[in-house]
Amino acid sequence: MKHLIIYTHFNSNSFTKAITNKLVNEATSKGHEIKIIDLYAENFDPVLKASDMSPDIETPKDILAYQKLIKWADHYTVVYPLWWGQMPAILKGFIDRVFSNGVAFKYGEKGPEGLLKGRTARVIICTGSPDAYYTQSGMHDAQVRVNDAGLFGFCGIETKITFFGDVAMGTDELRKGYLEQVASLVP
Amino acid sequence: MKHLIIYTHFNSNSFTKAITNKLVNEATSKGHEIKIIDLYAENFDPVLKASDMSPDIETPKDILAYQKLIKWADHYTVVYPLWWGQMPAILKGFIDRVFSNGVAFKYGEKGPEGLLKGRTARVIICTGSPDAYYTQSGMHDAQVRVNDAGLFGFCGIETKITFFGDVAMGTDELRKGYLEQVASLVP
Repeated sequence: MKHLIIYTHFNSNSFTKAITNKLVNEATSKGHEIKIIDLYAENFDPVLKASDMSPDIETPKDILAYQKLIKWADHYTVVYPLWWGQMPAILKGFIDRVFSNGVAFKYGEKGPEGLLKGRTARVIICTGSPDAYYTQSGMHDAQVRVNDAGLFGFCGIETKITFFGDVAMGTDELRKGYLEQVASLVP
Repeated sequence: MKHLIIYTHFNSNSFTKAITNKLVNEATSKGHEIKIIDLYAENFDPVLKASDMSPDIETPKDILAYQKLIKWADHYTVVYPLWWGQMPAILKGFIDRVFSNGVAFKYGEKGPEGLLKGRTARVIICTGSPDAYYTQSGMHDAQVRVNDAGLFGFCGIETKITFFGDVAMGTDELRKGYLEQVASLVP
């Protein structure tokens, strides 16, 4: 399995990073071929530009390389912290710039068509507050809609979403339990 | 009324820009004191950094100036195009960096408390596809949750959200109708 991990956090001591390290270990032990995109370390520029949308201007080399990775993978794991009920800006901009028309989807006669069909994704979202806050306010549901119908599902990717709640203020035991759960999230 | 308009688009010929121009005209004719944040023109850096979160490092001058504007306003109008069912990265990062702990909210004894109470916001979201796509897939609802419970409402701001659908492929008449509707969105 060609497994692309897209990891987003500025803090290498974050729980998001611990989850990612565990993911890499599990996927390695399962024999996956792994590639990792570390958006902060790679200093990704997330601002979609007019030039990104112009058919007359060549796609920048870094964006082309990321698009090649997206097409290379059979499976994606996307790991990020929820900030303001949404993904971090650097990850949002990665989607805006890399998942472009003709790469991730196209408009055909029957409307939009996903170009990443046959692939699967696991989205792991770490949240600072307990799950109850996000379920009662509809924020978990919003993340499911946005990631599936709005984004990966739109591109034809079969998508599953996992929330790890209360990672900031919860107990060490809670976090340990999440880390143990990671094995079950690696296909 | 002190009215802060936060506008996001890279294309000054976009419908999002036309809406913003109309907003400025209407607010001017109603006697508002207006300030505009044009995130693309101001070349805003949307990537939240470890230094933004450190109590030992001074807040950058541009972020301080934006925070001053946020506190200055009685009313916000936030205008953006929906990309991948979410706000553009440059706007997401504006929230991540400017709406910080101690400015937009704080954690008190009773949990989080909005520090922008008494203010109002109108969020205007321009979408490329017709409304039906977003209502059936739950994407409109997700934007309402994310903007209200997740973001402006969390800061204590009374928030209303308007969708202008099908702005890319719809008719000139449709867009003209939306522009006429803007007057009713200015308090």
